[in-house]
Amino acid sequence: MKIVECVPNFSEGRRENVIEQIVAAMAECPGAQVLDVQSDPDHNRSVVTLIGAPQAVAEAVFQGMAVAAELIDMDHHRGGHPRMGATDVVPFVPVRGATMEDCVALARQLGARAGSELGIPVYLYEAAATRPDRRNLANVRRGEYEGLKAEVATNRDRAPDYGPSVLGTAGATAIGARPPLIAYNVYLNTDDVEPAKAIAKAIRHSSGGLRYVKAMGLIVEGQAQISMNLTDYRRTPIHRVTELIRSEAARFGLAIVRSEVVGLLPAEALIDAARFYLQLADLSSSQVLENRLSDEE
Amino acid sequence: MKIVECVPNFSEGRRENVIEQIVAAMAECPGAQVLDVQSDPDHNRSVVTLIGAPQAVAEAVFQGMAVAAELIDMDHHRGGHPRMGATDVVPFVPVRGATMEDCVALARQLGARAGSELGIPVYLYEAAATRPDRRNLANVRRGEYEGLKAEVATNRDRAPDYGPSVLGTAGATAIGARPPLIAYNVYLNTDDVEPAKAIAKAIRHSSGGLRYVKAMGLIVEGQAQISMNLTDYRRTPIHRVTELIRSEAARFGLAIVRSEVVGLLPAEALIDAARFYLQLADLSSSQVLENRLSDEE
Repeated sequence: MKIVECVPNFSEGRRENVIEQIVAAMAECPGAQVLDVQSDPDHNRSVVTLIGAPQAVAEAVFQGMAVAAELIDMDHHRGGHPRMGATDVVPFVPVRGATMEDCVALARQLGARAGSELGIPVYLYEAAATRPDRRNLANVRRGEYEGLKAEVATNRDRAPDYGPSVLGTAGATAIGARPPLIAYNVYLNTDDVEPAKAIAKAIRHSSGGLRYVKAMGLIVEGQAQISMNLTDYRRTPIHRVTELIRSEAARFGLAIVRSEVVGLLPAEALIDAARFYLQLADLSSSQVLENRLSDEE
Repeated sequence: MKIVECVPNFSEGRRENVIEQIVAAMAECPGAQVLDVQSDPDHNRSVVTLIGAPQAVAEAVFQGMAVAAELIDMDHHRGGHPRMGATDVVPFVPVRGATMEDCVALARQLGARAGSELGIPVYLYEAAATRPDRRNLANVRRGEYEGLKAEVATNRDRAPDYGPSVLGTAGATAIGARPPLIAYNVYLNTDDVEPAKAIAKAIRHSSGGLRYVKAMGLIVEGQAQISMNLTDYRRTPIHRVTELIRSEAARFGLAIVRSEVVGLLPAEALIDAARFYLQLADLSSSQVLENRLSDEE
């Protein structure tokens, strides 16, 4: 039984009845579960987390896109977060049994359908991208709704992968596939932000650190925190990030007080950490009781 | 959705066709899965691992017991392992969503049914025991099939919880509930068995160590191994056992080379280890994606 996650972002974070109608359209689809809805009025944006069988999740997102296209007019949308469409971005994430290739296929299938049935220009991004420059979402969304609307018909470089080369009031949507993202924070035994900033700089990819780590140092409730996004836990596992922080912290005479995961993460990410620390060299995932269960059902 | 495991032990480890018929009777029950069958000709005993919904697993075990009672004659059974019945022992184990209380209720329900429908004397043991002296399986099985057969009618202390106070050729069965058992081995960087024996003695319950650890030191393929059974990983977690071994090994100038789990273990046991080593103080099991899925389906 394959399970995928999808985290569609909609350009509405203020009108509760609109958010409710979009979520309801998705929740009604059998086989797909809405796990979480986060609405941000400043960003004027809602982030929905769905999980379930691949086709069920794709169907649910399509229904959500249809409602969003009807109820959100991008000509009147203002908010603090970059955006280009009523349904702005739709990442599919392999969770269990499913591969990245499954999610790429799902992204393309949904893209084709949204393009033809809803008339929405769709850009494939990240693992589903058809061109290297479209892997990065920021490139796809450059100029946002207004900039893309002005350019899409005339600049062949900005032609969508699916749908018309013209933006209606529903704007355009980026649909893609990516690994699960883990929001991971580590707290240090200090109220000084400087060591947290130095450690964040040491461990993050952008300044020479680990490939799939984004990090910044800040103070949260009086305690220094290294706030991270782990963008591919299979290639840059949590334990490696944690031990690197521990080592860098020791250089300041500091230690890790505690850590936290914000939101959800796959069991595999934690089991990998146990495999490292307990030195379980040959532990296979088929030894985990719950995995046997789902394999054979 | 509640999931339990059951590990019935049958007194047949030589006649393949008998083992196959017992296993087939269990495998035919919808909702129960046979994960593993281990037959030992010296012990003349087979250990079957089943998993599934509580009622489905109980039904499967009942069908297995019925076939075993028909095909195994305890008057002619010889083997190296203590035994008192064709179906010798039936432990139910909570795996996911299910509690120990659920498994105790299941043990009693199956016991009552086996007693009345199959005429087999049933003794409840471990968490399902009705008397403190029956918690320990060794007490229940004292004298084995032959000794119990001679005593059961006359010694009121040995009256079964269910079924008649007389043993037929199917003998008697102990049915109970216990936590998942984890077979965990740790290897040291030495070919000398003495440090492994000393560490096993230091960490095991019987000689002053951790409450839910059984351990012995031995040499496996030229390498010192501490071979363990962790009988309640929630109360004596794997990480505490591992770190205690690490500390005791250091006293001999030794280190852990690798460790291994033999057979299956619940994901929770590994997630607990990640929670310890990554210092995830507040991580709840509802943050694990897979758990959300099964909660809401």
